[in-house]
Amino acid sequence: MSSYSARLSAAICRTGNPVCVGLDPRWNNLPAEIRERAAAAGGGTWEQKARGFEEFSRRIIDVVAGLVPVVKPQAAFFEECGPPGVAALWRVMRHARSAGLMVICDAKRGDIGSTAEAYAQAYLGDDGEGPGQGGVDALTINPYLGADTLQPFVDAAVKYGRGLYVLVRTSNPGAGTLQDIHDPANTTIYQHVARLVEALADSTRGADPYGCVGGVVGATYPAELVELRQAMPHTPLLIPGYGSQGAKAADVAAGFGADGVGAVVNSSRGIIFAHEKKEYAARFPADRWEEAVLAATHDMIAELAPHCRPRKVTA
Amino acid sequence: MSSYSARLSAAICRTGNPVCVGLDPRWNNLPAEIRERAAAAGGGTWEQKARGFEEFSRRIIDVVAGLVPVVKPQAAFFEECGPPGVAALWRVMRHARSAGLMVICDAKRGDIGSTAEAYAQAYLGDDGEGPGQGGVDALTINPYLGADTLQPFVDAAVKYGRGLYVLVRTSNPGAGTLQDIHDPANTTIYQHVARLVEALADSTRGADPYGCVGGVVGATYPAELVELRQAMPHTPLLIPGYGSQGAKAADVAAGFGADGVGAVVNSSRGIIFAHEKKEYAARFPADRWEEAVLAATHDMIAELAPHCRPRKVTA
Repeated sequence: MSSYSARLSAAICRTGNPVCVGLDPRWNNLPAEIRERAAAAGGGTWEQKARGFEEFSRRIIDVVAGLVPVVKPQAAFFEECGPPGVAALWRVMRHARSAGLMVICDAKRGDIGSTAEAYAQAYLGDDGEGPGQGGVDALTINPYLGADTLQPFVDAAVKYGRGLYVLVRTSNPGAGTLQDIHDPANTTIYQHVARLVEALADSTRGADPYGCVGGVVGATYPAELVELRQAMPHTPLLIPGYGSQGAKAADVAAGFGADGVGAVVNSSRGIIFAHEKKEYAARFPADRWEEAVLAATHDMIAELAPHCRPRKVTA
Repeated sequence: MSSYSARLSAAICRTGNPVCVGLDPRWNNLPAEIRERAAAAGGGTWEQKARGFEEFSRRIIDVVAGLVPVVKPQAAFFEECGPPGVAALWRVMRHARSAGLMVICDAKRGDIGSTAEAYAQAYLGDDGEGPGQGGVDALTINPYLGADTLQPFVDAAVKYGRGLYVLVRTSNPGAGTLQDIHDPANTTIYQHVARLVEALADSTRGADPYGCVGGVVGATYPAELVELRQAMPHTPLLIPGYGSQGAKAADVAAGFGADGVGAVVNSSRGIIFAHEKKEYAARFPADRWEEAVLAATHDMIAELAPHCRPRKVTA
């Protein structure tokens, strides 16, 4: 069983780019044809929305499979549709893995002791689908509850060859409320988390350059990204905030490391809702929204290319 | 529409106690009869476990309904059973509300911007079930991402008359990793969170003594509980860590406030798996496990009674 970081590096090298497509379906942004079909098929609000989210996500996956290494479904949007949404999420994640994409489930879970074990098993384990079949490639988790609460996730990631991304420095405007508070030695909370994550990454990497424990570092804070890449040399990074949240290619350049495989850069709305953006809407009519997704993906790949040159390997 | 805190206070006064029964189903601890029936009904691992968790949780609810004010299902254990588990969780939560219990969904969610809105809508909104029917009474949330990420939850809680419990000081041994780090003015991270939560509680309480934004403060740190009760006079507390995690009635005494309604105290394993504890197993044979649950609930109520005297009101 190869490690998460080895599989991710191979996928980045195979596709030649570090793009992560965020699957954040929002009902009001879905192409009209999908909303109409989902509503026409009946059922309650939850069922209708879940049906639309599933079709939309599957079609996005079919557009980007082979082109990018990884997709990142956002659990919240599926959970908003109740149990039908969660069922749709799992089918979407299986569809992505079947299509050869790696899957980072963005659920930001975290809890104590045996409860953390349950979350780890839910997302990283094999249960329910047979050995090697269940779960996702990686899960985002929240460090607030403490180091002991990360360990069950780390144990499961090592056991099952999966990955984790711990929130270190998030991309939102108010990220600093707690993350920027510093101790008397001038070490901020996000730096404390970074040290913890790097130690876990280093201890789980074996002979790989990167461990199975990664960090979330927002592209909207470029200076912190430079600093954190240096402070976490063995930590794979998940970099949100590109595109619609405002970060540009130059902002994420520092995230990759010399080998070009140390980070994936996520864009959600900028790709999946490209059909709503003026530049793509002018080129593609509404019923050709998938071509807008494809064009936006190619554009992001091209934007990042000067900053990230993963060493190509044969598949 | 009455506020969450008004409804919770009324429930505490009506039952005369602040006990929250944690619904943390774990397959290996379920009564044998339930495991056997759940397995015999077939399906995959996820379906079997979800079926067992649902029957177990429903039967616990039927035992404690009318006796305690609130139950707290732990989302992780249900998510561990994949989509069938999540469907079971929602049926369990509806069953609890139908039985007159308030429901705190312990999911520790948290994310940024419109993603936080989606989580808030998922748990606190009315969607999927019609106005006033969906969602739960309260949700636990994680503050690491910053103050701006709490706001969508607060807005939804106010709009729908629901409540929140923000993690302030958790009950696990490693809680201090981040929570105990202090700034140069000697204010700890958990104290920073407490100030933020108290401000949100105060701003949402209207004429009520408590707001709709509460705090999670572990009973396993009694000194911090004393301090935080004083620092958060308008914040309803959810106090985990009682019983199996080691805290005693005297440890939680400081949490209630003078009116006796400022906190609920959670016990999960100590009540729901009472049939495994020597003191109850000796009195109740395995097939009478519900009587062990009932006895353990009465015992916890009696233990807390000297420390918490909610003013009785007529129902």
